[in-house]
Amino acid sequence: MTKPTIKDVAKIANVSISTVSRVMNAPESVIESKRSKVLDAIEKLKYKPNALARGLIYKKTNTLAVVIPDIRNPYYADIIRGMEDASKKLGYNLIICNTDRDKKRLFSYLNNFYERQVDGILYTSDPVFPDYYNEIKRLRIPVMLVSTHSMEYELPSVKIDDEQAAFDAVKFLIDSGHRKIGMIGFDLSDSIAGQTRYHGFIRALRENDLDECKENIVYVNGWSYETPDAAAQMLAKCPDVTAIFTASDELAIGLLCYLDERGISVPDQISVIGFDNIRLSRITIPKLTTVSQPTYEIGYRSVEKLDAIIEEKEDPVLREYLPHEIVVRASTRRL
Amino acid sequence: MTKPTIKDVAKIANVSISTVSRVMNAPESVIESKRSKVLDAIEKLKYKPNALARGLIYKKTNTLAVVIPDIRNPYYADIIRGMEDASKKLGYNLIICNTDRDKKRLFSYLNNFYERQVDGILYTSDPVFPDYYNEIKRLRIPVMLVSTHSMEYELPSVKIDDEQAAFDAVKFLIDSGHRKIGMIGFDLSDSIAGQTRYHGFIRALRENDLDECKENIVYVNGWSYETPDAAAQMLAKCPDVTAIFTASDELAIGLLCYLDERGISVPDQISVIGFDNIRLSRITIPKLTTVSQPTYEIGYRSVEKLDAIIEEKEDPVLREYLPHEIVVRASTRRL
Repeated sequence: MTKPTIKDVAKIANVSISTVSRVMNAPESVIESKRSKVLDAIEKLKYKPNALARGLIYKKTNTLAVVIPDIRNPYYADIIRGMEDASKKLGYNLIICNTDRDKKRLFSYLNNFYERQVDGILYTSDPVFPDYYNEIKRLRIPVMLVSTHSMEYELPSVKIDDEQAAFDAVKFLIDSGHRKIGMIGFDLSDSIAGQTRYHGFIRALRENDLDECKENIVYVNGWSYETPDAAAQMLAKCPDVTAIFTASDELAIGLLCYLDERGISVPDQISVIGFDNIRLSRITIPKLTTVSQPTYEIGYRSVEKLDAIIEEKEDPVLREYLPHEIVVRASTRRL
Repeated sequence: MTKPTIKDVAKIANVSISTVSRVMNAPESVIESKRSKVLDAIEKLKYKPNALARGLIYKKTNTLAVVIPDIRNPYYADIIRGMEDASKKLGYNLIICNTDRDKKRLFSYLNNFYERQVDGILYTSDPVFPDYYNEIKRLRIPVMLVSTHSMEYELPSVKIDDEQAAFDAVKFLIDSGHRKIGMIGFDLSDSIAGQTRYHGFIRALRENDLDECKENIVYVNGWSYETPDAAAQMLAKCPDVTAIFTASDELAIGLLCYLDERGISVPDQISVIGFDNIRLSRITIPKLTTVSQPTYEIGYRSVEKLDAIIEEKEDPVLREYLPHEIVVRASTRRL
């Protein structure tokens, strides 16, 4: 079969060649029904303009769009800073959109990006569900996954190794002499930060003959630190824990507040280790021991990788992992 | 003089009528040099298409752009939430841009908004300098000032009364029996949050015969809570203060951390009152007494007002002030 041309696309979609060109060049000028027909035809034929033609057809707008699930989560602040510095260096403007994990909103933004011809999308944190993937593919906008990845789809990504990071956090507690350890984690329906960190916790227990701790888990839905409920449940369930690993610094900060109110001293009675190393973790009382994610670098690197795709440069690593580390501050102690 | 028409604009700019129309309708399709000539002509003639023609010429994109100076500042999180809920209700997409207080970046974004034909701009927190105003006016995009305002220009705004809010915070300390009061404030070059809150502090002292405290001020540049320096300076300068008013919760949180490290008990030895009521102030140790800004409502109302301008609806109040309140938690005490 010969390579499909713009003519073939026009024929299948039953529109003129110039309409196909406009769909690729100025999609907002084509009515939705025609646009859909053209996109479907492109998809069906696997039509791909060659690099030169592509450069002529697609106009670069030097704009990247960031999709974040919850702007209130301070975790994103440093990621965005890294993205911005890289964007500045590479000549892009960055527009940020908050989806609130609302699918309708996400799709509305994707369409908006398409109409505005952003050069690429930085999709952060959330899992990529099949309908998201299909929509992204249909719109033919380059996508970079940031602090998330996909094993099902061939999408490029930048993140840390969450399972190993959680393992290291729990191993740090064990090496400090703790034998009664609990975890406040994210629901296992969250494949990115829920399942992975749970598996790291379990593996650290297993490799150190602490299987009796594996029920010491409280799950929370979402990322809010306004859930002292989780802390209360933890202590009701396992009143004798000497150390708690939380799957985020926000959860750790909520836990510190809860323990302080009940007169339970950290780290004298209970050690607490968080996850993320958000800016705030340096000024909690006591200062938080945590797993440091290289958030700034994740943001920076994700823009570099996305730029490589847009500019059709070489980028050998599809799923890239950046190193984490344990930052020891005052909320943990040796037993 | 008769009302200028699109023909007059074309004549002055020395371009065709269709070029003028394209500048208003699809500016990205017109080269920069021509575009500038048209914009200058529009400006010079004070050309304003009538409402009907405007509807025909300008295509509504249902997109609003938010300009924020520092995405790491948690103050913006709730403002953006309010903006988003109002945008959702009124059918807009919201794109967020972080300028890092970099003028070049701001101008680049403004131009980007113009090319992408956003329906309006939500400009937050920073003062409006003359060159910003001229650029905004030249691009003819409706602008709403959020948590900032302008006395020089006729621009609509939504914020609290900062002077009165600072006054109320300091008055609260005085009414609680404090006579030795300090302030950690923003540099007076900041006309929005610096000067206003300083004036509120001074007025409260003056009305209560505490003029001797008016030198007890340490100024910081920027909003970071990573400046324990300010706290150290405060105590070096006025070791006998019994209460400190900070111009933001971030500053208060940094102060709490500094005092805790030095073994100075809050509120037993020093009372601390913040400003903003960010989400985090509910889980500091001790929980923070603060001035509550209606951040969510400020965001929500600003989108409603901007929509009124875009849709040419009635909105009688140019500079709108929303009510603040003192939220008493555990970081202050009666002497």
